[in-house]
Amino acid sequence: IPILGLPVQFVCYGFTACVSLLDAAMSPKITVELLRQLRQAMRNTKYIAEPIQAYIVPSGDAHQSENLAPCDCRREFICGFNGSAGTAIVTEKHAAMWTDGRYFLQASQQMDNNWTLMKMGLKETLSQEDWLISVLPENSTVGVDPWIIAADQWKNMSKALAGAGHSLVAVQDNLIDAIWMDRPTRPSTQLLTLGLGFTGLTWQDKMTALRSKMAERKISWFVATALDEIAWLFNLRGSDIEYDPVFFAYAIVGMNTIRLFLDIKRLAVPTVREHLQLDTPSKAELSVQTAPYESVFTELQAVCASLGPKEKVWISDKASCALTQVIPKAHRTLIPYTPLCLAKAVKNATEIQGMKMAHIKDAVALCELFAWLEKEIPKGTVTEISAADKAEELRSQQKDFVGLSFPSISSVGPNGAIIHYKPLPETNRTLSLNEIYLLDSGAQYIDGTTDVTRTMHFGSPSAYEKETFTYVLKGHIAVSAAIFPNGTKGHLLDSFARQALWESGLDYLHGTGHGVGCFLNVHEGPCGISYKTFADEPLEAGMIVSDEPGYYEDGLFGIRIENVVLVVPAKPKYNYRNKGSLTFEPLTLVPIQAKMVNTDLLTQKERDWVNEYHRQCRETIGAELDRQGRKEALDWLIRETQPIA
Amino acid sequence: IPILGLPVQFVCYGFTACVSLLDAAMSPKITVELLRQLRQAMRNTKYIAEPIQAYIVPSGDAHQSENLAPCDCRREFICGFNGSAGTAIVTEKHAAMWTDGRYFLQASQQMDNNWTLMKMGLKETLSQEDWLISVLPENSTVGVDPWIIAADQWKNMSKALAGAGHSLVAVQDNLIDAIWMDRPTRPSTQLLTLGLGFTGLTWQDKMTALRSKMAERKISWFVATALDEIAWLFNLRGSDIEYDPVFFAYAIVGMNTIRLFLDIKRLAVPTVREHLQLDTPSKAELSVQTAPYESVFTELQAVCASLGPKEKVWISDKASCALTQVIPKAHRTLIPYTPLCLAKAVKNATEIQGMKMAHIKDAVALCELFAWLEKEIPKGTVTEISAADKAEELRSQQKDFVGLSFPSISSVGPNGAIIHYKPLPETNRTLSLNEIYLLDSGAQYIDGTTDVTRTMHFGSPSAYEKETFTYVLKGHIAVSAAIFPNGTKGHLLDSFARQALWESGLDYLHGTGHGVGCFLNVHEGPCGISYKTFADEPLEAGMIVSDEPGYYEDGLFGIRIENVVLVVPAKPKYNYRNKGSLTFEPLTLVPIQAKMVNTDLLTQKERDWVNEYHRQCRETIGAELDRQGRKEALDWLIRETQPIA
Repeated sequence: IPILGLPVQFVCYGFTACVSLLDAAMSPKITVELLRQLRQAMRNTKYIAEPIQAYIVPSGDAHQSENLAPCDCRREFICGFNGSAGTAIVTEKHAAMWTDGRYFLQASQQMDNNWTLMKMGLKETLSQEDWLISVLPENSTVGVDPWIIAADQWKNMSKALAGAGHSLVAVQDNLIDAIWMDRPTRPSTQLLTLGLGFTGLTWQDKMTALRSKMAERKISWFVATALDEIAWLFNLRGSDIEYDPVFFAYAIVGMNTIRLFLDIKRLAVPTVREHLQLDTPSKAELSVQTAPYESVFTELQAVCASLGPKEKVWISDKASCALTQVIPKAHRTLIPYTPLCLAKAVKNATEIQGMKMAHIKDAVALCELFAWLEKEIPKGTVTEISAADKAEELRSQQKDFVGLSFPSISSVGPNGAIIHYKPLPETNRTLSLNEIYLLDSGAQYIDGTTDVTRTMHFGSPSAYEKETFTYVLKGHIAVSAAIFPNGTKGHLLDSFARQALWESGLDYLHGTGHGVGCFLNVHEGPCGISYKTFADEPLEAGMIVSDEPGYYEDGLFGIRIENVVLVVPAKPKYNYRNKGSLTFEPLTLVPIQAKMVNTDLLTQKERDWVNEYHRQCRETIGAELDRQGRKEALDWLIRETQPIA
Repeated sequence: IPILGLPVQFVCYGFTACVSLLDAAMSPKITVELLRQLRQAMRNTKYIAEPIQAYIVPSGDAHQSENLAPCDCRREFICGFNGSAGTAIVTEKHAAMWTDGRYFLQASQQMDNNWTLMKMGLKETLSQEDWLISVLPENSTVGVDPWIIAADQWKNMSKALAGAGHSLVAVQDNLIDAIWMDRPTRPSTQLLTLGLGFTGLTWQDKMTALRSKMAERKISWFVATALDEIAWLFNLRGSDIEYDPVFFAYAIVGMNTIRLFLDIKRLAVPTVREHLQLDTPSKAELSVQTAPYESVFTELQAVCASLGPKEKVWISDKASCALTQVIPKAHRTLIPYTPLCLAKAVKNATEIQGMKMAHIKDAVALCELFAWLEKEIPKGTVTEISAADKAEELRSQQKDFVGLSFPSISSVGPNGAIIHYKPLPETNRTLSLNEIYLLDSGAQYIDGTTDVTRTMHFGSPSAYEKETFTYVLKGHIAVSAAIFPNGTKGHLLDSFARQALWESGLDYLHGTGHGVGCFLNVHEGPCGISYKTFADEPLEAGMIVSDEPGYYEDGLFGIRIENVVLVVPAKPKYNYRNKGSLTFEPLTLVPIQAKMVNTDLLTQKERDWVNEYHRQCRETIGAELDRQGRKEALDWLIRETQPIA
């Protein structure tokens, strides 16, 4: 699934944050009473020493998560808008919500008249700071929950307000939670322990590697706040957030100390206790001290109180203001990517093997799906929703299936042009022989995470549909087959994906690729392929990214061809300055529909690429389909992988 | 000539800053006595209230100039190193000089043992701040001339020193000037006035456009500090800095006021007085108040003293600390690119016509040169220096020739691999039938500025030389023929230039293109084509950039193919979201040596591009050669532009 290629402060890869609620019809939420209660709370000295004149409700949780647990959908609760990106601000008289162009329509449908929609990106739209300054009385106080605002956002907002005579204050009790009567509890799902066969490294190995990075940079402590990093570090998985196999936790790692903060009840399970060696005497520096999730704040305070004069603490520059500010400035080292993020991105041999296995199983399910669709579509009974359900059903038959890795984008005809579309009962179209079908879907298996898009026509595509599909395919191949020097950042490859489209005056308005976790989040840093150059890290052998150019014709159709690809060493003719070269190896092995290709527009090299790719699909997936006895899908695969001329 | 693609704070396009001194042999400068005097000055209360423990000598003048006038070569004066990038710091006991990898050898040869060379980019090298902190006694004071350090550099240095208990202070009298007995005076060359036929817009038109930009952003005053911006604004040129047709000046523009600060003696010339309408009563808002160069500081203070509470002053974020800090923070709006920089980059019809004429004349001179070289080289009498001199002589015969736009890079064989090579008597090689010749040169004409690189072999190139030349040519064509959407930034095109090289494991370590001024600096912002993504502005029709990929084999040869190209609208088949497309039109029309091309490696499209390019060269330059009666060069042109198969 594509990322939108926005600068890093706006990276909101996903769909809507609170997907469970998306199925609700788009009628506005009535917020009169809620706003009255919130304004009352803003004056209530039970929560704050002095009344505040404005309260900021950012979207997000305390862990920089892309997807949110229901209990963290506070911005949605107060205004009704459930898109992935948006900030609500309530003053004594006004209520306003900022979101970007993807969500103008949705937000205007989901919010009632008490709310002003602030359309980000339009010239006339005031920034949050400028708007606050324009509406607040002199010497106002603006409050925000310091746990869900990042330290740098706090700094900018605070500075802007101070410049106009106002002040920003941290409100420790979240005022939305205070008025949210039926707020769901924070999930505390069962933890899954992963053995060496899945992880390739014990958590003790990872801890040692982390500490050697810390020693290298003379860092005494590291505070882990991102949920996928903590899951990766401890070789544990949860299901606290839909689609993301993570669990709510913090970790603080010193050279001789490991502190893990989570719901202590989760540690009652013997396998978890054993995995973390909680009951086994072990070397002091590898013994895990567990503590309640909420105690991270006081524990970090204690750690910081005992710091020597030159000791430094590492924390992500995207961590919450609350936790960041616990660390005295002189001891704080903010980093854009933590050592865990960087280590996690480069998959080891076991993880690569797992990802390959997961993609084989995933391809089996998809071959079956497409064979089934071919048979069923002419009956007129398959819809976007039922096709997505069938895909999930087929995936769930595969070994070690855990769940989907994101909500399937199952879209017919014009719906395909909505990049982050999710079929709803009221938008649900029937698959037919006349319209293009785009399916962007993926799953979590215990051995790996998948994310694949195929665009198919089950009747006769038009010349224009074939032409644009072929440009997208050329872009996909240009990235997948690119050879580039070691040390190249992914954003330098983005234009390769667009070149064929650009030549015909076409383009697509999202990034070309994102990092993919291994039985972790389907979107992860620090690498990616995007025209927006955020601070991406250079591509390295072992990294895994998606390659997913597209083309979208509003009101007509959408095309996207997405493989997950592994960065591997390349061996070109020369080796300039002994730098070495890299290229990509597709992990996704699902045929690309030849019917959609105008082969006249392909070069011989591109035709060779397609045929070699299909040979691999046939060989690898064919063997597995055969082993699983899935005859119809095998026939389909063999037919769909005939060489093109 | 290539830029090095470094982040913007390190953009040092050029060769050495003080080119006039480059011809000196590379023997170290003896600095014992100079350092003694400087250290004395550092304690001398004639210059500073309290003794300082360290003095920073940045390279640069008060105008962010890439090239420097001799009087501004202070860092070179104190340490002997005359490269374009380098900062010297002298403490009571130590003297150290920081420069980057291009200059390690040169700096080590030019500096004596009193100096420590600090090799930037190596892991073990301390930053200036860290080094200062490591060598200074407690509570030290570090001095710097605030006129030659940018405001943001000041801020960073000041913060780092303060964090370690030291302080950074502005020393108003430059201490180098204080001990530089034979320091040249600041040049004050004759000003040249440019009429509408060259500029397309009167300076009054430009002033009005500037003011409308200011009004749009509610800005009351604009401070112009970059010399090329001031020259462009007033349609004046000078020759204060070699190669750059600029003059030392500042300007302060208000909605009803124009203040120009320069050596008042320059205004004695009647044409200049008339051009600026100094003696003609004109509308108040278009009357120019002139004042001495040095008075800009006090005048800006006066302007700032009279500011209303909400009034804002625009100044470049690269302007000197001294001038920036005159503007109170609440009134200061720092901008990465000034409205003049942006307006200057988009050439109007007259400027484009002028640039075309300049490139035709330049091509005439180069065709003559290459025809002459072909005849003379076999005699063994042509050297790098004499070839460069001949090129200059031939250019000087063309109408409105003013001078070179940068020192010619005339390089044979291994010297070609030194990207910013300038032939010196002790490195001067003879052109032969056995080695590749690379000539990167350009000129200033009153109607335009040129910059062109051709790589030729006058005997039989090896298969490897042809192969790598052809990859470079493919990269050149990929950029030149690229079609891309309006709004695309140049850095997104950089990889197109490298794709063919990358595929064979090769690369080059400089940027692909830079903006080119119109009878102004050969390097100008805000656009460019580089793998390093600084904050470049999107390409726009009318912008002019270079397209100059290369390949360098250390110790053997260098290859570069450079055209200056104009951004023009393109008309591809489709027009996605009515955004429109752009492409490039070559202004440089000099044949690319077919003998160096392995045509088997070109696609049909690339062969067509070469043949169409050569057809244009023959048509346009052929007509002019014919008109000028330069028969031999015409014959050479016709032969060199035969279609390739």
